[in-house]
Amino acid sequence: MTTVGILGGGQLARMLALSGAPLGLRFLVMDTAPDACAGQFVPMVVGDYRDEAALAEFASRVDVATFDFENVPAESAQWLSERVPVFPNPRALGVAQDRLAEKTLFRKLGIPVPDFADIATRAGLDEAVAKIGLPCILKTRRLGYDGKGQFRIKSAADVDAAWQSLGAQAQTVGLILEAFVPFERELSVVAVRGRDGEFRAWPLTENWHVDGVLSASLAPAEADAGLAETALEYARKLADALDYVGVFALELFCRAGQLLANELAPRVHNSGHWTIEGAETSQFENHLRAVLGLPLGDTRMLGHACMLNWVGELPNAAPVLREPGGHWHDYGKSPRAGRKVGHATLRADNAAALAGALQRIGDALARGAQTAPVIRSLQA
Amino acid sequence: MTTVGILGGGQLARMLALSGAPLGLRFLVMDTAPDACAGQFVPMVVGDYRDEAALAEFASRVDVATFDFENVPAESAQWLSERVPVFPNPRALGVAQDRLAEKTLFRKLGIPVPDFADIATRAGLDEAVAKIGLPCILKTRRLGYDGKGQFRIKSAADVDAAWQSLGAQAQTVGLILEAFVPFERELSVVAVRGRDGEFRAWPLTENWHVDGVLSASLAPAEADAGLAETALEYARKLADALDYVGVFALELFCRAGQLLANELAPRVHNSGHWTIEGAETSQFENHLRAVLGLPLGDTRMLGHACMLNWVGELPNAAPVLREPGGHWHDYGKSPRAGRKVGHATLRADNAAALAGALQRIGDALARGAQTAPVIRSLQA
Repeated sequence: MTTVGILGGGQLARMLALSGAPLGLRFLVMDTAPDACAGQFVPMVVGDYRDEAALAEFASRVDVATFDFENVPAESAQWLSERVPVFPNPRALGVAQDRLAEKTLFRKLGIPVPDFADIATRAGLDEAVAKIGLPCILKTRRLGYDGKGQFRIKSAADVDAAWQSLGAQAQTVGLILEAFVPFERELSVVAVRGRDGEFRAWPLTENWHVDGVLSASLAPAEADAGLAETALEYARKLADALDYVGVFALELFCRAGQLLANELAPRVHNSGHWTIEGAETSQFENHLRAVLGLPLGDTRMLGHACMLNWVGELPNAAPVLREPGGHWHDYGKSPRAGRKVGHATLRADNAAALAGALQRIGDALARGAQTAPVIRSLQA
Repeated sequence: MTTVGILGGGQLARMLALSGAPLGLRFLVMDTAPDACAGQFVPMVVGDYRDEAALAEFASRVDVATFDFENVPAESAQWLSERVPVFPNPRALGVAQDRLAEKTLFRKLGIPVPDFADIATRAGLDEAVAKIGLPCILKTRRLGYDGKGQFRIKSAADVDAAWQSLGAQAQTVGLILEAFVPFERELSVVAVRGRDGEFRAWPLTENWHVDGVLSASLAPAEADAGLAETALEYARKLADALDYVGVFALELFCRAGQLLANELAPRVHNSGHWTIEGAETSQFENHLRAVLGLPLGDTRMLGHACMLNWVGELPNAAPVLREPGGHWHDYGKSPRAGRKVGHATLRADNAAALAGALQRIGDALARGAQTAPVIRSLQA
């Protein structure tokens, strides 16, 4: 009986456990919140990731460890990796936690990135703004997610406010200035790499964000074969360079047919939730297969799929349940502004049928703003 | 937060819970065995189904109750149904528990059945054998499953041995004599009926048994449209007559193109396990949707699927995991002769691809005897 430990007990851990149960696996999650939603189906160690006693208990009860959450302190991941196998490895986690290290690696591997600069001081910020140009975005190097820890600088007059907002963090989590990319589309590659280096990727996915939070994902993304191949090549290079094991997502901007890497998420990813019903093997099962050294599963799609995120609170489930290809995911969390509480996946055999389903769902739930851009992409 | 109670904590309860988690449901199982495998993911009340205190605790913690196991005493189901909603209803459960009541209902509804007779005494057995003819099978009316509680009477000389084996049970669980049907194929309809009477069925499934235990299931069964329609009509009539709510299986014999009803299983069924990957909505999710009064999900297939049962012990998983459409289900049980410990489902876009996958799996696992009849059916 193999027990997989997961640091972080949110919906990703929950979906990992639900997809791993048929493989005969047991799970243990560790989370700071006693009501973390994975705990509804999986035993839990409640504790801070820096609490060595809690980490030691966790380590003693698992055969292998992985993450539902990338912002586990690097030293905790390192400490753990000296006691049990940890995938992805702490170095890969460390790179993905740090926008500067990540973008430096992208550049080194020949993966195009928006121009960027390390920012340590106010004078350094002025210099970098002059070099990179406007508009640009000041971001924390670490601990940012879902648009948090970012300040957009549209004109020279915004520099003061940006520094006031984030400057204090230059000496703690660090800051990075990035050129603002007036992208046309956001894409992601969700991919998996096995312990033996085998690499597989699901079809390219198009994503839409609202207020920095993922709102909808569509797979396969409408893209020519060359673009999709390039995106997958970037993901493969990155995974090989990091000796990455498990599932990850590479987020990309697309502008004038060119790809620019935005960031690496070192875990199963919200833009891969559609794989549960839309692919032969889900990202969750393949992450576990990779971590355990099992053969990787087929990543091909079964038709077309769209994932709609439910943020803040769940809408009425009935219109989705009534839809022939409608699948509901309630994470068992209480509602809270900005919180991801669930998602729906719509699967269809072809793009036109998927567009029709999205139209009905958008109408029934009064969420046309969420579904309209996906429908436009399907009809393009 | 809705909690679904399940009487019985085996693999069916386990798969119900895993498929119901995304609907935001919580579960509680009740089982006599503290190590029942659903308990690995779901809280459990350990107790005998006749133990009123345990049943009362179970009832107090659930919003609705259902079954993973049909041989719950009818009085326990009745007692429970006076405290919480129970689906399927105790009458349907009672009919399905009793081969005589079941076959009497089949006949009343115009569903063809093998000839049968109620047996109370040794003299009655002689009389019935004379009337029904040889060969025939003496069975317990209640508590038989997977070929247990049956005695095949091939010649008049076997009647003594049959009575010696089962006669004592005439006064306890009751006995029934059934004509032996030299059937060519065994089929099943797995279907679901909602609280509002809506009825849906998955495509007709062909089944192969070894020593009375299901060995393999194939869907869709090779059958002309008329036969499949007749089978579904029988299932619908039965469900309507019992005001059935939830998933059930109707097992059928096929002889010379004619269907004969064998039995009704009032629960999710082993011959419907392929629906997890092979259908838009699985039998497990649709059972829960029905029990909760939610809209039923689409029962259409995604290609062709074959389920192989693992009885006694699990074979090596790797050949199945390496197969593009291969899906593994380990129930987390310890090995034991005759015990269902897991299954694999192979899914493919067409019959030829499925036959190829079965050939490879049969070879790799040295289980050609298990896969060969399915391959023959696919090639027919």
